[in-house]
Amino acid sequence: MKDWVVNLTVVLADGRVIKTRQRPRKSSAGYNLNGLFTGSEGTLGFVTEATLKLARIPEETGVALTTFPTMRDAANAATQIVREGIPVGAVELMDDVQMVVINKMGSTGRVWKEMPTLFFKFSGTKAGVQDNVESVRKIIDQNKGGDLEVEKDKSKQAVLWSARKEAFWSMLCMRESGHEAWSTDVAVPISRLPDLVEMSKKDLEKLGLFGSMLGHIGDGNFHETILYDGAKEREQVSKCVHDMVHRAIEMEGTCTGEHGIGLGKKEFMVKEVGEGSLAVMRGIKNALDPFWLMNPGKVFDP
Amino acid sequence: MKDWVVNLTVVLADGRVIKTRQRPRKSSAGYNLNGLFTGSEGTLGFVTEATLKLARIPEETGVALTTFPTMRDAANAATQIVREGIPVGAVELMDDVQMVVINKMGSTGRVWKEMPTLFFKFSGTKAGVQDNVESVRKIIDQNKGGDLEVEKDKSKQAVLWSARKEAFWSMLCMRESGHEAWSTDVAVPISRLPDLVEMSKKDLEKLGLFGSMLGHIGDGNFHETILYDGAKEREQVSKCVHDMVHRAIEMEGTCTGEHGIGLGKKEFMVKEVGEGSLAVMRGIKNALDPFWLMNPGKVFDP
Repeated sequence: MKDWVVNLTVVLADGRVIKTRQRPRKSSAGYNLNGLFTGSEGTLGFVTEATLKLARIPEETGVALTTFPTMRDAANAATQIVREGIPVGAVELMDDVQMVVINKMGSTGRVWKEMPTLFFKFSGTKAGVQDNVESVRKIIDQNKGGDLEVEKDKSKQAVLWSARKEAFWSMLCMRESGHEAWSTDVAVPISRLPDLVEMSKKDLEKLGLFGSMLGHIGDGNFHETILYDGAKEREQVSKCVHDMVHRAIEMEGTCTGEHGIGLGKKEFMVKEVGEGSLAVMRGIKNALDPFWLMNPGKVFDP
Repeated sequence: MKDWVVNLTVVLADGRVIKTRQRPRKSSAGYNLNGLFTGSEGTLGFVTEATLKLARIPEETGVALTTFPTMRDAANAATQIVREGIPVGAVELMDDVQMVVINKMGSTGRVWKEMPTLFFKFSGTKAGVQDNVESVRKIIDQNKGGDLEVEKDKSKQAVLWSARKEAFWSMLCMRESGHEAWSTDVAVPISRLPDLVEMSKKDLEKLGLFGSMLGHIGDGNFHETILYDGAKEREQVSKCVHDMVHRAIEMEGTCTGEHGIGLGKKEFMVKEVGEGSLAVMRGIKNALDPFWLMNPGKVFDP
């Protein structure tokens, strides 16, 4: 997100209104307040205006997917694509459970192979997209992937991408009455991704939990959504999520790639950022909001 | 720069050592200390280690140049290229004075047209580079540009790019004995760039100053280097630079795209960021370095 924020207007705890920066593409005038307020979860001030960058609609786009025998193969392929610097607009990984769920819910108008699946978006010039599709195809072949199905027609692209769009909602629809859904995200350096994905998947199976995995895997970021009986299974789910988070941090990753800390992940802050950095964050909070009025209780405590 | 910094190890004013973040590609865990320390000019701590992103060497590269009748035409072409989202690795603008100076110093092994010149770098797949070169050529034609000279051979690319590499050093070599060089940079939203470039060039001429312009124009960022007699012309040069900076800020730009504030541009901070943001920056400085020990006197005063 932060890469798309040009500037923010923020109301501070004492009522002052500031703008984080003007709007040149680059600036080195003073501290990067724009980067500081973006993602601070409202704990440093109210954001009342945001100027965002726009992206051009590309000349050509492509949507593609393929399946893999295992999650490790899919993660290996995604990792290799990113490390070789092939420009892909998105690389999304969904596991076999997620594909089963989408088929069961039936809201996409198509039947999907129930296997680990990678979804891609491409954009650029016609020739550039073609080149990138071919480079991706080569890596998929090297990693035991199936045929790469590529759509250039907009309406067919929408059908292909619908599995990605419907993933979370299909999971929620699967809940039995009275059951809950726990959704979480972590991110790790891309080289550690295949390990983390595989370990987390085994953990779910070992604990007998019903959960699916969906990754914005080009960023080393993935989400687990677990459906569970709040009365009976909360402890196992909590352990499963905690273990995944600790593992991600130990791999030099983060307890949250994009969801943020909020209340639920405060306990992981020290382990991830360290006592020193946490003290610096507290110092900044104290300087800007000495009475801890803004979104109190979130991110970390006094 | 900040987009290439994965994390920093920083020694704070009180001797504590922190790491700004772990190394996943994305994280939303707490405040963005990485973005805060990067570009803080050593005023918040000593950076002792930096982890940087690496970029893949592209499959294909291209270096190209063309000339224009006026700076406005060149700036218009560059602006249009950026706004149409054509992926160029670099777009550099050099004015006629700069080209004259490079010819005079003769360190590039080639004679250049003494006209406003745009230099380009392209990278990607073979077909992608070809597509992008053609898109750029079309825009150049629409903006009165000359023929686009494109080199794909590495050693010929180096010759073509040498004018860009030698620009600043050639200017310095032009100094008469005892004369000084004033180099400065500003950046504005890309839509305002043609206006600012033209106004600044007229200003130089009006004041009878010998200065050249060189822009990282794809970023709306450009540099002016003025050679002057420190005893006689300091006042005019100072006025010329001040006027350009004020104009850039009034265009919602910045007094410095990449040089930083240091001592020389402290006076522009209030105008650019506003009293409120400056107070926030002071608050952060006070919180992390209460005795103002780190790089004292730089960026802003207590």
